[in-house]
Amino acid sequence: MTSQPRLVQVRQQVLKQNDVVARALRKRFAEAGVFVVSLVSGPGAGKTSLLRETLLQLGGRFKVAALVGDLATENDARRLAESGAPVRQIVTGTLCHLEAAMIERAMEGWDLADLQILFLENVGNLVCPATYDLGENLRVVLISTTEGEDKPLKYPTIFNTADLALVTKIDLAEVVGFDRAAAHAAVQSVRPGMPVIELSARSGAGMDQWLDFIGEHLRAGSETPSVEPVNSEIA
Amino acid sequence: MTSQPRLVQVRQQVLKQNDVVARALRKRFAEAGVFVVSLVSGPGAGKTSLLRETLLQLGGRFKVAALVGDLATENDARRLAESGAPVRQIVTGTLCHLEAAMIERAMEGWDLADLQILFLENVGNLVCPATYDLGENLRVVLISTTEGEDKPLKYPTIFNTADLALVTKIDLAEVVGFDRAAAHAAVQSVRPGMPVIELSARSGAGMDQWLDFIGEHLRAGSETPSVEPVNSEIA
Repeated sequence: MTSQPRLVQVRQQVLKQNDVVARALRKRFAEAGVFVVSLVSGPGAGKTSLLRETLLQLGGRFKVAALVGDLATENDARRLAESGAPVRQIVTGTLCHLEAAMIERAMEGWDLADLQILFLENVGNLVCPATYDLGENLRVVLISTTEGEDKPLKYPTIFNTADLALVTKIDLAEVVGFDRAAAHAAVQSVRPGMPVIELSARSGAGMDQWLDFIGEHLRAGSETPSVEPVNSEIA
Repeated sequence: MTSQPRLVQVRQQVLKQNDVVARALRKRFAEAGVFVVSLVSGPGAGKTSLLRETLLQLGGRFKVAALVGDLATENDARRLAESGAPVRQIVTGTLCHLEAAMIERAMEGWDLADLQILFLENVGNLVCPATYDLGENLRVVLISTTEGEDKPLKYPTIFNTADLALVTKIDLAEVVGFDRAAAHAAVQSVRPGMPVIELSARSGAGMDQWLDFIGEHLRAGSETPSVEPVNSEIA
């Protein structure tokens, strides 16, 4: 009756192909010393606002760049370019997530040796991006206080594939009646031990903690590469 | 390099199959005199809160019921059941949208003759549900003031398949600096002429206008069926 099994089967083939490309990307990033952070969330959780502030504040200390995915429009790339960092838009059409091959194509012409941190902003979607490895070192999932506390329970897969949860728009917590304890409990029930940072790109609350988190993982990443040993063949 | 064309090809086959089931559903709904309203939005735009209020307020005048989709948890069905209306949860697992066959299965055992309005709450996602017909009479897309004004431009397909846009959480418009004119312009640029209602399930603002909209379309629907003529064979 339902076509799900067949679609799932094809998806698995697509995923395998994506994993091959993602693995090659991860190798290239490691060799070039680029630390890659991806951001995933539902629409309007504040990825672009956070990224704009992040690029502005890290731009003085590191060589940063960003790739941003959207179904349509180049609005986000324009907003982010105001930070002065190199930014490119990936327009996905009707596709609900970024794939590793899109990242590879979008970077064409960029000298990775000239970069230290690359941010990847995924399409606004709490479902599809979950199973696509983009070669990132750190996957960050955002939930905003305005979305409600139950999102980790309702979208467990994306939380299970993330390394850090950000509770965004924390300046609005009170006005929307956001239950912080319930949100933290929801995150921990889905992914025990996952670090959570509350912040607001607008008020600046929590931004230091977020930037420090990246800084610490950047240093840790350059000391002990997180990638598995790879063959020496040139991609 | 990318696997997109193959996935798209398979998706089109899936869609065709979905359309067959959706068409049969639409016929059954029309014959039973059930008016079907589906709600789509990103996560946390307020579908469940709105639906709860809607079931409560329409429940005195009409025989209403709801089917709600989520990847995981039955939380929404529990929240909605407080309204007293019959509610069933559809758990989609990793699937990012509802399909017509899921609606068909979830209704098993329900006597449609005993229903006047059926609400379908889709998975929180502004991408995947766009291309799946569920046999509904009216598709309603929600954007919340906390998500930003640009969502219609960034997710045009879902707005193009909808009959009505609701701007939810209008009580928060001021505190989040929501630009109402920009939001309306964005909707109209993607889908000229689409009606837009601003409301808040929490404050009650705009609720009458929304309930009247359903009432008017319900009456219009029962006078002039929106379905194409169908064969008399029994499904």
